[in-house]
Amino acid sequence: MHPLSISELPVAPPPPSPSGPLRVGMLGIGVVGSGTYAVLARNKALIRARAGREIRITMVAARNLPRARKIVGPQVEVVGDPLHVVQHPEVDVVVEVIGGCTVARQLVLEAIRHGKHVVTANKALLALHGDEIFDAARRRGVMVCFEGAVAVSIPIVKALREGLTANRIEWVAGILNGTSNFILSRMSENGTRFDEALREAQRLGYAEADPSLDVNGGDAGHKLALLASMAFGMPLRFDAMPVEGIASIQPADMQCAERLGYRIKLLGVARRSDAGIELRVRPALIPRDSLMAGVNGSMNAVMVKGDAAGVTMHYGAGAGSEQTASAVIADLVDVIRNANADPSGFVPALAFHQEAMTALPVLPQEACIGRHYLRIPIHEGEQAISEVLAALTDNGIAADKRLDTCDEDRGRELLMVTQPASEAVVAQAVLGLAALPGVRGAVVKLAVEEIG
Amino acid sequence: MHPLSISELPVAPPPPSPSGPLRVGMLGIGVVGSGTYAVLARNKALIRARAGREIRITMVAARNLPRARKIVGPQVEVVGDPLHVVQHPEVDVVVEVIGGCTVARQLVLEAIRHGKHVVTANKALLALHGDEIFDAARRRGVMVCFEGAVAVSIPIVKALREGLTANRIEWVAGILNGTSNFILSRMSENGTRFDEALREAQRLGYAEADPSLDVNGGDAGHKLALLASMAFGMPLRFDAMPVEGIASIQPADMQCAERLGYRIKLLGVARRSDAGIELRVRPALIPRDSLMAGVNGSMNAVMVKGDAAGVTMHYGAGAGSEQTASAVIADLVDVIRNANADPSGFVPALAFHQEAMTALPVLPQEACIGRHYLRIPIHEGEQAISEVLAALTDNGIAADKRLDTCDEDRGRELLMVTQPASEAVVAQAVLGLAALPGVRGAVVKLAVEEIG
Repeated sequence: MHPLSISELPVAPPPPSPSGPLRVGMLGIGVVGSGTYAVLARNKALIRARAGREIRITMVAARNLPRARKIVGPQVEVVGDPLHVVQHPEVDVVVEVIGGCTVARQLVLEAIRHGKHVVTANKALLALHGDEIFDAARRRGVMVCFEGAVAVSIPIVKALREGLTANRIEWVAGILNGTSNFILSRMSENGTRFDEALREAQRLGYAEADPSLDVNGGDAGHKLALLASMAFGMPLRFDAMPVEGIASIQPADMQCAERLGYRIKLLGVARRSDAGIELRVRPALIPRDSLMAGVNGSMNAVMVKGDAAGVTMHYGAGAGSEQTASAVIADLVDVIRNANADPSGFVPALAFHQEAMTALPVLPQEACIGRHYLRIPIHEGEQAISEVLAALTDNGIAADKRLDTCDEDRGRELLMVTQPASEAVVAQAVLGLAALPGVRGAVVKLAVEEIG
Repeated sequence: MHPLSISELPVAPPPPSPSGPLRVGMLGIGVVGSGTYAVLARNKALIRARAGREIRITMVAARNLPRARKIVGPQVEVVGDPLHVVQHPEVDVVVEVIGGCTVARQLVLEAIRHGKHVVTANKALLALHGDEIFDAARRRGVMVCFEGAVAVSIPIVKALREGLTANRIEWVAGILNGTSNFILSRMSENGTRFDEALREAQRLGYAEADPSLDVNGGDAGHKLALLASMAFGMPLRFDAMPVEGIASIQPADMQCAERLGYRIKLLGVARRSDAGIELRVRPALIPRDSLMAGVNGSMNAVMVKGDAAGVTMHYGAGAGSEQTASAVIADLVDVIRNANADPSGFVPALAFHQEAMTALPVLPQEACIGRHYLRIPIHEGEQAISEVLAALTDNGIAADKRLDTCDEDRGRELLMVTQPASEAVVAQAVLGLAALPGVRGAVVKLAVEEIG
């Protein structure tokens, strides 16, 4: 990628081209870019009929020019400098699919400054710099569309902003990372260990060579920040979000959760209460017979609770070349529809992002109330259980469900789902359990999320 | 309702009101109408911020004027004559929530003739008269929106037409009637008989006093006709759709399906092949561990297979006052967005309905290929099974799975899921089975649908 040299002069808006093709300049032609090119080519007539105008990729910026030329053919201009694309007067929309944050941010802002609409599937970019980018777009009167950034094949951005627009959203919860859902599904089905399941995911192409962002909850957190912002009209608060990954989940907890009637999923949850917004990504137990528990493999799902619509769930692939292309092209068609409108026609859609910036704070995780799963290794005898229950009762924690089990390998364990209690209280109580004479090892604590 | 007297004179379009409130005239103020009024009132500021304009119900036509006045308060004009609403120059959009087909059709067409956009949740009206209504709207340059007509709380119309707009749709399948899904769920959970479960549904308000359209598949068929039309760009072909209800489903088949690894759901399926379009509503078996099998109670779900996005599923309430209001209001916001556009901005959205009218015929059901569930009461001894298998083999039908069972009440039965075979061949073979000496009663045949 060339170093950027962004001029600071004001730029005239590009000439409108309301009846000709929508001219798309693409930054990057990797997995998503080539998928977008392929779907646009294959379904050209269909998309044109539906959109009312042709969508034509006219220019592509790529590092490997010969490879890019081979993908897009001779009709498309292939350039090495992405600035050439974002500044070009004959580009109406910039599709950013290079990934990363630093260069992508500069290019997107420069595209906006040049009056281009922007379509991106870059969740990290938007979660970290979205407020700046959306603000620049609003001031310049252009659209920034990002359907592909959240649960790619699922039109959840559209569902939240348009389909459920009549609703005060109460909560949003989602399985937002396909890699970690694949790993947890495998662990649940076969008793596989985390590291084995991860290797399998890598072998099958469901996980990157460096899977950190997928398994540490970061990627799901980026998506949840976007969902919460749309759902509650709040700024992007990835910075305030406690994020926990799945690397410490053991097959034992999969089995024990199952025995208690639950499954473990990496769940992003954003919930509004009168006190504020709860916001978190972590592995959590959900009822085994809930619809969300049936979302397996690399699939994603988002559940939304609206005050009028009630609970809706939106399910589909969370990654993939053409799956993301489906979202990118839907955004391009939206650009066509809105670019044909007078400015007041699309500003509201844009403005939704921060429609009436909620003044509610993000609540500290310790203050959140919920049920918890505990796996407590205990010694033989009646004494151990009484001790544990007494210690919990002292902290005001009661059991909702409990099982006294003895596993061949792990020995005797007390499995428990608590009644609702504050996170801080449960954390404190678990620390105390370790000191009890009847407790013979580390206590595992996981949250139970109430959705559906 | 007053008799209609529709003038045939051409009518001037209403004056645009692009910055003031969107003025809504509502026909009927029953369950959906009053829910729409309530949600608009409760979430007024939110909806205004998101839509960019206020949505104001200015006029309501109702049979019971005092009751209507009590619901909407003194700011809204309540009239007895619905024609007054559809012809009124100060109404921008007509919301049709009176139901029925005859009067509703005339009112909707008259509203269109007067240049009003129309929002309706009336699936029967659109399934039977949609081609005429959409054609009139296209010629007049107004929108007809119907998100509430299909799986009310789920924004599936928007998902199909906009979110998945890049996709060639391969199939759509759905649990499209909440009443029948409630009844089948109850039968599956408790072994309840159909008539008992129906009475429970009526007691809980999930079924009308006259539940025919819900349990005979007709209502699901209306919705499937709309889904297929959008998915494949085809005319509305409710007339060509084989529709079968759930009244003949026995608890025994619920149990037997479960033993074979399936659940029985009332399923609408629309599938495109090179030969044509398959289109049908019927109770069918789907794998017990599929996501669709987890859709229980009065909930609805629609699964869509697109060539780029793959399979997505969309789940939510299939009925309810505010659930439908959520869809009606989303449509009103869409009217605002598109009515702010120049005509070319919304015609494509409208035109999608029949974007490139597919020339593919609706396939006769007999020609469709699929697997089938058979429950065959047989006499004791090895002979009976050999006879049945031989008779099926003679017809070219092989078993995919079979179970030789003996129920306390029903006696010995051969349960079977066949390998794929044409519907005509299986139907013929089943007729033949009745004549075998080893078969001691009526054979039950149900289809297995391949989705997901």
